[in-house]
Amino acid sequence: MFNYLRFVATDEYCTPLIILWVLGGRGGDSGGQQEKRMWLLRCFIVGYAIPIFIWPRMNEACLSTLSSLDSCKNNLENYCPKSILTYGAEYHDGSITYGGYFDTMVADELFFVRIPDNLSLDVVAPLLCAGITVYSPLRYYGLDKPGLHVGVVGLGGLGHVAVKFAKAMGAKVTVISTSPSKKKEALENLGADSFFVSRDQDQLQFHGKLVLVGALEKPLELPVFPLLQGRKVIGGSMTGGMKETQEMIDFVAKHNLKPDIEVIAMEYVNTSMERLLKADVKYRFVIDIGNKLKATTS
Amino acid sequence: MFNYLRFVATDEYCTPLIILWVLGGRGGDSGGQQEKRMWLLRCFIVGYAIPIFIWPRMNEACLSTLSSLDSCKNNLENYCPKSILTYGAEYHDGSITYGGYFDTMVADELFFVRIPDNLSLDVVAPLLCAGITVYSPLRYYGLDKPGLHVGVVGLGGLGHVAVKFAKAMGAKVTVISTSPSKKKEALENLGADSFFVSRDQDQLQFHGKLVLVGALEKPLELPVFPLLQGRKVIGGSMTGGMKETQEMIDFVAKHNLKPDIEVIAMEYVNTSMERLLKADVKYRFVIDIGNKLKATTS
Repeated sequence: MFNYLRFVATDEYCTPLIILWVLGGRGGDSGGQQEKRMWLLRCFIVGYAIPIFIWPRMNEACLSTLSSLDSCKNNLENYCPKSILTYGAEYHDGSITYGGYFDTMVADELFFVRIPDNLSLDVVAPLLCAGITVYSPLRYYGLDKPGLHVGVVGLGGLGHVAVKFAKAMGAKVTVISTSPSKKKEALENLGADSFFVSRDQDQLQFHGKLVLVGALEKPLELPVFPLLQGRKVIGGSMTGGMKETQEMIDFVAKHNLKPDIEVIAMEYVNTSMERLLKADVKYRFVIDIGNKLKATTS
Repeated sequence: MFNYLRFVATDEYCTPLIILWVLGGRGGDSGGQQEKRMWLLRCFIVGYAIPIFIWPRMNEACLSTLSSLDSCKNNLENYCPKSILTYGAEYHDGSITYGGYFDTMVADELFFVRIPDNLSLDVVAPLLCAGITVYSPLRYYGLDKPGLHVGVVGLGGLGHVAVKFAKAMGAKVTVISTSPSKKKEALENLGADSFFVSRDQDQLQFHGKLVLVGALEKPLELPVFPLLQGRKVIGGSMTGGMKETQEMIDFVAKHNLKPDIEVIAMEYVNTSMERLLKADVKYRFVIDIGNKLKATTS
């Protein structure tokens, strides 16, 4: 049911093993097929694959620098108003997108990210979703200045990377969690400065910024007066553009920050889904689609 | 029922006629009275008076630069967490604050604003509430850069000043109103670039910032996904500190921006209240408490 093009990586910046944020199409792929649809993929293929987003797009949308859309001109392809989400969205022909796995692709060179030599490929995989999802708002909302106090609500796939990034940016980091059991992990393993257990949503300080990166289904109830009184801000952020994704990868390489992962074989996927429901993973599964690495779990 | 100290203006920056944002107290006023309570007042007295805020404060709070509270150290006295609002708030002794009018005060010099010679006093009055209330968020939220597009929702006492300020900062300004009748006023008299009638709350553009300056009683319903998808921001702002109030006044003097007012005598107050309920004022009443000016309405 889901659509994708079969492409081969050819970009000079890219090893044959890695394709990230791949955009196909441009009215025709290298095989000469007149394919009018395009896909923007944030993926990681051959060896390991994590199909995180597959965003088919209208032909007139985010095609490298050709587009007139502000989001594309300004290195913010992720905010393209014509994008279609990989999972559970309606495609142009009315079908529903289901995501997918694959091992080769051809893509526009602008949609590749160069992976520095000191980062292993399996470790990079979660950075392309969790990593950029927390990196971008830390930068955009000005939380990247030494001396600031950054709170990370929820210590999971995104949260544990956020702690590492914010620490590397010089912030004091507090992990806010509903699980007291995560205290030791937060302080000792991830290097957070403090931890507290809270279900209280009214902890946002004077001039605080609450940045949401998770798509809650229900609307939030937002009392206005506290927002005024404390000059507080509530903002959203959704992944990041190509330029910033490269910046994030280089930042990770420079500071030697790595997400904590568990490499699994494809056969383990169903089990991993059961474990995911119990939040039993630290902190991301990476699927070894090509069976090229020894899975850490099998 | 309301409390205030009777003070006389003595600051060198201040003409004897004007006291703005007055803070009394410091454990004793110039008359030697050991008065433990303090008041931060945003007022405008003798000749004309608009008691906009009277904020009694704890002695240990925003006393000039002596305080250790962040809001006071950083020229943000208006966000002092120990402030008590003038109207309808509970004072330390359990009584309810009602605001008030008066004609003389003594205050700490740090809480005076200098009024440039080219601004008449009646015109300045609304700036000390409406003016700083819209000036501060335009600056804080980075909406003061030429080329940006600023929307002003609601064309009243605050809105009409916001249009003037945003235009002077170089923005393109759109007035958004539920009243088609305000179109001519917005475009011809206030200089807005465009106008549209809307009750639709989903007009916020990609990367838009919605800054609330009015204290709505009911919580807003905030859908999260649109916030993420457009990297939108919702923020609050409440008046401004002493330093920024002075900056705003100087900005007004430099650009010759004046709020539109109607000067009334004290005897007209009840009538003005009736007219306020019908939104029948452009755009602020200024009360001539001292009967020193000829009221424009009587």
